[in-house]
Amino acid sequence: MALLIQNGRIITADADYTADLLVEGETISRIGEGLTAPEGTRVIDASGKYVFPGFIDPHVHVYLPFMGTFAKDTHTTASQAALIGGTTTYIEMLAPAQSEPLREGWEKWTGLAEGKSACDYTFHLGVTRWDDETEATLRDLVAQGMKSFKVFLAYKGAFGIDDDVLYRVLTLARELGVVVTAHCENAELVAQLQRRLLAEGKTGPEWHEPSRPEGVEAEGTAHFAAFVEMTGAEGYVVHLSNERALEAALEAKRRGVRLHIESVIPHFLLDKTYAERPGVEGAKYVMSPPLREKHNQHALWTALEQGLIDTVGTDHCPFDVAQKAMGEGDFTKIPNGIPAIEDRVNLLYTYGVSRGGLSLSRFVESASTKAARLFGLFPRKGTIAVGSDADLVIYDPNYRGHISASTSHMNNDYSAFEGWEIDGRPDVVTVRGEVAVEGGRFVGDPGRGQLLRR
Amino acid sequence: MALLIQNGRIITADADYTADLLVEGETISRIGEGLTAPEGTRVIDASGKYVFPGFIDPHVHVYLPFMGTFAKDTHTTASQAALIGGTTTYIEMLAPAQSEPLREGWEKWTGLAEGKSACDYTFHLGVTRWDDETEATLRDLVAQGMKSFKVFLAYKGAFGIDDDVLYRVLTLARELGVVVTAHCENAELVAQLQRRLLAEGKTGPEWHEPSRPEGVEAEGTAHFAAFVEMTGAEGYVVHLSNERALEAALEAKRRGVRLHIESVIPHFLLDKTYAERPGVEGAKYVMSPPLREKHNQHALWTALEQGLIDTVGTDHCPFDVAQKAMGEGDFTKIPNGIPAIEDRVNLLYTYGVSRGGLSLSRFVESASTKAARLFGLFPRKGTIAVGSDADLVIYDPNYRGHISASTSHMNNDYSAFEGWEIDGRPDVVTVRGEVAVEGGRFVGDPGRGQLLRR
Amino acid sequence: MALLIQNGRIITADADYTADLLVEGETISRIGEGLTAPEGTRVIDASGKYVFPGFIDPHVHVYLPFMGTFAKDTHTTASQAALIGGTTTYIEMLAPAQSEPLREGWEKWTGLAEGKSACDYTFHLGVTRWDDETEATLRDLVAQGMKSFKVFLAYKGAFGIDDDVLYRVLTLARELGVVVTAHCENAELVAQLQRRLLAEGKTGPEWHEPSRPEGVEAEGTAHFAAFVEMTGAEGYVVHLSNERALEAALEAKRRGVRLHIESVIPHFLLDKTYAERPGVEGAKYVMSPPLREKHNQHALWTALEQGLIDTVGTDHCPFDVAQKAMGEGDFTKIPNGIPAIEDRVNLLYTYGVSRGGLSLSRFVESASTKAARLFGLFPRKGTIAVGSDADLVIYDPNYRGHISASTSHMNNDYSAFEGWEIDGRPDVVTVRGEVAVEGGRFVGDPGRGQLLRR
Amino acid sequence: MALLIQNGRIITADADYTADLLVEGETISRIGEGLTAPEGTRVIDASGKYVFPGFIDPHVHVYLPFMGTFAKDTHTTASQAALIGGTTTYIEMLAPAQSEPLREGWEKWTGLAEGKSACDYTFHLGVTRWDDETEATLRDLVAQGMKSFKVFLAYKGAFGIDDDVLYRVLTLARELGVVVTAHCENAELVAQLQRRLLAEGKTGPEWHEPSRPEGVEAEGTAHFAAFVEMTGAEGYVVHLSNERALEAALEAKRRGVRLHIESVIPHFLLDKTYAERPGVEGAKYVMSPPLREKHNQHALWTALEQGLIDTVGTDHCPFDVAQKAMGEGDFTKIPNGIPAIEDRVNLLYTYGVSRGGLSLSRFVESASTKAARLFGLFPRKGTIAVGSDADLVIYDPNYRGHISASTSHMNNDYSAFEGWEIDGRPDVVTVRGEVAVEGGRFVGDPGRGQLLRR
Repeated sequence: MALLIQNGRIITADADYTADLLVEGETISRIGEGLTAPEGTRVIDASGKYVFPGFIDPHVHVYLPFMGTFAKDTHTTASQAALIGGTTTYIEMLAPAQSEPLREGWEKWTGLAEGKSACDYTFHLGVTRWDDETEATLRDLVAQGMKSFKVFLAYKGAFGIDDDVLYRVLTLARELGVVVTAHCENAELVAQLQRRLLAEGKTGPEWHEPSRPEGVEAEGTAHFAAFVEMTGAEGYVVHLSNERALEAALEAKRRGVRLHIESVIPHFLLDKTYAERPGVEGAKYVMSPPLREKHNQHALWTALEQGLIDTVGTDHCPFDVAQKAMGEGDFTKIPNGIPAIEDRVNLLYTYGVSRGGLSLSRFVESASTKAARLFGLFPRKGTIAVGSDADLVIYDPNYRGHISASTSHMNNDYSAFEGWEIDGRPDVVTVRGEVAVEGGRFVGDPGRGQLLRR
Repeated sequence: MALLIQNGRIITADADYTADLLVEGETISRIGEGLTAPEGTRVIDASGKYVFPGFIDPHVHVYLPFMGTFAKDTHTTASQAALIGGTTTYIEMLAPAQSEPLREGWEKWTGLAEGKSACDYTFHLGVTRWDDETEATLRDLVAQGMKSFKVFLAYKGAFGIDDDVLYRVLTLARELGVVVTAHCENAELVAQLQRRLLAEGKTGPEWHEPSRPEGVEAEGTAHFAAFVEMTGAEGYVVHLSNERALEAALEAKRRGVRLHIESVIPHFLLDKTYAERPGVEGAKYVMSPPLREKHNQHALWTALEQGLIDTVGTDHCPFDVAQKAMGEGDFTKIPNGIPAIEDRVNLLYTYGVSRGGLSLSRFVESASTKAARLFGLFPRKGTIAVGSDADLVIYDPNYRGHISASTSHMNNDYSAFEGWEIDGRPDVVTVRGEVAVEGGRFVGDPGRGQLLRR
Repeated sequence: MALLIQNGRIITADADYTADLLVEGETISRIGEGLTAPEGTRVIDASGKYVFPGFIDPHVHVYLPFMGTFAKDTHTTASQAALIGGTTTYIEMLAPAQSEPLREGWEKWTGLAEGKSACDYTFHLGVTRWDDETEATLRDLVAQGMKSFKVFLAYKGAFGIDDDVLYRVLTLARELGVVVTAHCENAELVAQLQRRLLAEGKTGPEWHEPSRPEGVEAEGTAHFAAFVEMTGAEGYVVHLSNERALEAALEAKRRGVRLHIESVIPHFLLDKTYAERPGVEGAKYVMSPPLREKHNQHALWTALEQGLIDTVGTDHCPFDVAQKAMGEGDFTKIPNGIPAIEDRVNLLYTYGVSRGGLSLSRFVESASTKAARLFGLFPRKGTIAVGSDADLVIYDPNYRGHISASTSHMNNDYSAFEGWEIDGRPDVVTVRGEVAVEGGRFVGDPGRGQLLRR
Repeated sequence: MALLIQNGRIITADADYTADLLVEGETISRIGEGLTAPEGTRVIDASGKYVFPGFIDPHVHVYLPFMGTFAKDTHTTASQAALIGGTTTYIEMLAPAQSEPLREGWEKWTGLAEGKSACDYTFHLGVTRWDDETEATLRDLVAQGMKSFKVFLAYKGAFGIDDDVLYRVLTLARELGVVVTAHCENAELVAQLQRRLLAEGKTGPEWHEPSRPEGVEAEGTAHFAAFVEMTGAEGYVVHLSNERALEAALEAKRRGVRLHIESVIPHFLLDKTYAERPGVEGAKYVMSPPLREKHNQHALWTALEQGLIDTVGTDHCPFDVAQKAMGEGDFTKIPNGIPAIEDRVNLLYTYGVSRGGLSLSRFVESASTKAARLFGLFPRKGTIAVGSDADLVIYDPNYRGHISASTSHMNNDYSAFEGWEIDGRPDVVTVRGEVAVEGGRFVGDPGRGQLLRR
């Protein structure tokens, strides 16, 4: 069934105009004034609303074995929560254990997603070891359209890789023309600082941040940038959290290093005092890099407004209260992560656009378009143009509400943003031409999502 | 007459797709696959060609009394040259003498343009003194839609302003919500270094660069940024030429200062050895800031590719060989400027996109979209969207040619780029729905251009 | 009468040893183990004490007409207070009004000091305007041994100079081989921010800091550095107060600019909350650059420890409580300054050496030796060597006491350091071989001090 | 026999005066005017000459198994060459293979030196692996007075250590209060770039520099600084060679990291074009970090003049032409090193003091005093003071000569400085009160040198 979306204010990264949109099949076929449509077309009145391209979350964990437990979402819950929040595509981190061949990881991760996601999705290929099998599998999967890698400089002994593997991954990435995304914290410093703090009896969640201070992330960022520079590859720093790391990344960009910067929604809004709450209340806010001193938020917002930060993701990673409690008495055992896939777009709109200095175009660019460009989804995703997938978000800027775990669709029993006000929400969301969300409820086909080859 | 442009590859700052474009009246009315058009519509086949939004040159001098002489172009010659080169809108600097009331300057500058330009144009309001008349006129002209100012930190005793006026201009700009563009070289240092060099008998054009070295521009840039920061205004550094000034500007941006950066096409392609040619051959390449050491070009290109430089303009300012010869024996008497309005787009395409690492989207963004955004022309100009002005450039990437003064349409008798190859050119250019250029020749209405109020 | 100082631990910037010192006449004649001395020699036992070279305060105001009033000290009071605190040489700022010819200023300032100071002194020649008389007088006074200049970038309309004069002063300084010291705050920004704050009804002393924020000082520092660079002169930034200004200065040094950095004792120990005390309590702490946020103190201390800050002065400038009260209702009318000439050495020793990380050698170097080197007093002053003036401080590290206005010898009725503990004090102080202080009391010749020609 | 050195101009880091020096036994006993001496004292007339404290070379290799061969000097040859060049103390790197227990290394290195050196010497304890034996030996040797460590971030698979060992070394160093010196190049990047270049057929010595470019050293420097910061230790970057690494180090110092910087004499004077000479001629100039682009020399000199670089060493490491030829056809097989122990002081004096902008005090401080301070030799070494060792250099600034392998006393058959002019040389050199050099010839006791415990 065709869709005709009338009179919406269409906002993309470089356009802002009012027109009608005609969707035929899965894509946008026509944009214009006073469009007419064939019989049987469903007509949606978007007057007074924004029409945004579907948002893209470039940094999501759904299936994640971590510290002996598993993140709580399935693709069913994550994708429906994403859609309700306006995210129509997410990129999951495929993160095999070092003992697990990449091919097996690939089978497992894709198997869990297949037929279960209501929206489109794809993967960053996590590289956690290097051998012939890994290289061959990477080449094969890139050929199949999986055009980005993920590495961890942190998590020594788990996902973390050493300089040798880092160089090899970047060299292969350059050859194949894919971007390498990186978690930039120096593994050794984290491990040693953890050990030192625990030895001093500092075991609560408030010690998580001091165990991976800003300088550790800045060092990781500069280190990654140097390897990107020397290999000529293209890099992408995930979840950059503080001003000092930002300086390191920008200094590299200024030198001509092809480096992109992602920050995630918790770092824009939450500071380290949240994690200093006692016991499991603090543990809810443990993620890595940790929540930082408040002044860093200003630096992140202005960098985002000015285009110095490229993308806003979530690092969505839901562990419930019981899991968080596993770290009682030892902060290093708290599963890392904050669930946010459902709330990213509304929070960024509310605290960036509605109440802050973020322009609508930078909002769309950072939460959708730039990720599409960097990860090979563009112009299929990330914009509103003839021929693009009809992943559309008709957004109501007059909606007023609150975030709450009790109304959330993520599979979790707490929200890091409990009670936060939002100044808008997606009214209608489409996935490749079919309506998936209406009035805040999921109404789509739960298994319609496709693995995006790019 | 309506226009239907079929099968072009439409490139904007955030889109890249193949579709048909329907233009009715002065604007784009429809974008889609297989569009049909009313009888009488002129159909243009754009297969194999790019369709770009009309390019915008944010930094142009047409009428310019300077060092006792006048730049050679009229709006007739400048606008037709601009169009042939793909530029459909230019922003001229209104630059009254300090003795001239702003209102008189406004009458003079607009009077010279009215009815003479083949393409649309607007003005940065140059502020060269401060008094009640100036402030009142600025308020009035902003109310009439002239939403940007221009100041010179350089040119002591001519256009240059002091810190007191700078603060007032920025404060008023902040109140009125307009951007202040600034020529950032410390006036005193230039004046003193000129004096010192001449006293040492260093009189040739090769001494122009040492009279305004990189540090002088970096100081000016940092100084302007500090004033922008303290006033909370929005600033725009024109014709940034070197790495050290770039560092100063980026450092300010990182601190959250709202600062935008323009570089101009000569600085990307020409280095200071050109101005070191003997006599008038060197004088042809005298502009300010001067052409720099070659390594700066790499810094400018990579900053442009990464989005750290916002816009590419020209500082178009044509003085002919006889005028350039006025500075024989005293480089401070060489009229400053290099003509480039016709060549900017082709050079940027050729040496950026075709032979370099500049993406099509950054090309369009930096040469069109971002200037439209910053100076209030968006979304009327700078993009291809329903409702936008049909200023379109159908660009032939298969064209091969050379730049030469002998084939130029600018009113000048030399080209700074004589003999340079170009890898493409505009095939058809429209101005608000009417074809102005075909096959490299101007075929439009020579007086159709309008003063853009924004 | 000769002096034999036995068994002291002699500390200079590059030595630390125990020996005897023989002083004959005004200078040190011999250093060695087991020295014997001619009959009539006074023998002082320095066992268990340090013997330091006399300390030098490079930044002092004694006679200062400022904001319509006068600093309270005379050379009699200032010099005796200095000596009791271990300072045996001070450099006063000769700061004529812009309406006052430099020669007249010179006569007035030297006239007030002559025969009145108990310790040696000299002058930085303040340049507050430029004309033939000024230049001729500067040349003459430099020839007479006054080898340093002082300029103010701040204090628009009072002491402040513009870029033209700045360039001329630096150029002359380079020719004559003298150092230019500079107060680096942008005058215009201060004037405008003061105006803005007062217009908003922000009149208390707590608004003094926001009227000259860190960025204003950083801009001034970078601006001065650029002029020093372009003229090839040698510059000296006085009373640098914050991390951002420090970055600007170090960036210039790294580029090879010959720039030296002074910080003053209040900025190491006091933060802006002192000036936020209500009414005249806050006014006591008003100086320029203002007391800053506390985190800057850490930056200053570590920079001092590492040798990145060259000298520690006072900017001694005593206004009493009644004078401070002149600014009630208008913070811009509070006379600027904090008295500290008596306390600098004890505070730096206590909070730097005794309780902090400052080495004895850096203590001596920054509070004595480096100023001697920079301002042409070395090796006559600033070290303990054969032939050097016998300006010696026998320092008792076992003394414990407090600072208080009630026991101070400065002519003032409050102390900014009231109640602060000190961990040592000078026991004996000599001026050119004569004992001036014993057991904390002045016992010398009140008029013995000489004008130092260098 | 006592020595009386008369009328020399005594120069230390903080003094400059003319006096007599009396040496009794091994130390300086008296400094003064017109000293008389006991019968039998040897009197040396130093009129017209400088008297410097003996110079200290903090970075020397004598015994060095490297790339399958051995550096050519013995302590006999190295120490006599050092003395003739004015160096009276050197610190050798004890650099055991990773397979060699540290204790065995200690026995071997000290065994080779004992009784063979004509001047005093000590060791940086190289840590090339970590186990219980290493830690226990380090603790024991520090207790015996060996108060500095050395680590290599470069030389993967040979001396190089990983982050884990780096953290442990720094943590132990902090506990024991010793300085960690570090060779800061990222091992992995060097290894990979070597591999890449060789694979591309780039085998000549001109490819040595591109295999370890400036960014690799800057990364290593920043990496080391981050570890120093996190452990709270005190670090020392050896042989810093370029501006970008300098920026990294200074940025850390500004943040308060206790980091010291050494550069070595070849980097001040030689650029990478030397290593680009064909074949073994280029190989003579292969050292690591490599000789750099010429502009870096200006940065090093100005940083040295300003005190931003702390010490000047040599990285003396003599391989002869036959050894250098081992790398024909594979630059990675060229033994790294340039012999310079004999020439450092004369070159620094000539090109720094005599022909450049280096002050005498910075000359002495950087080539002697600062190393003494940092490595626990002060005030025994590094200054001229009562009680200090009488290691003295009576330097003739009127001598004119050339450097040549044919007149060198180092055990080598080429000089990297062949034909370079020198503007002075040591006339008399003493070691703990005994004359070891006269008129450029060694006249001392070849085995008099002692292992310095500190």
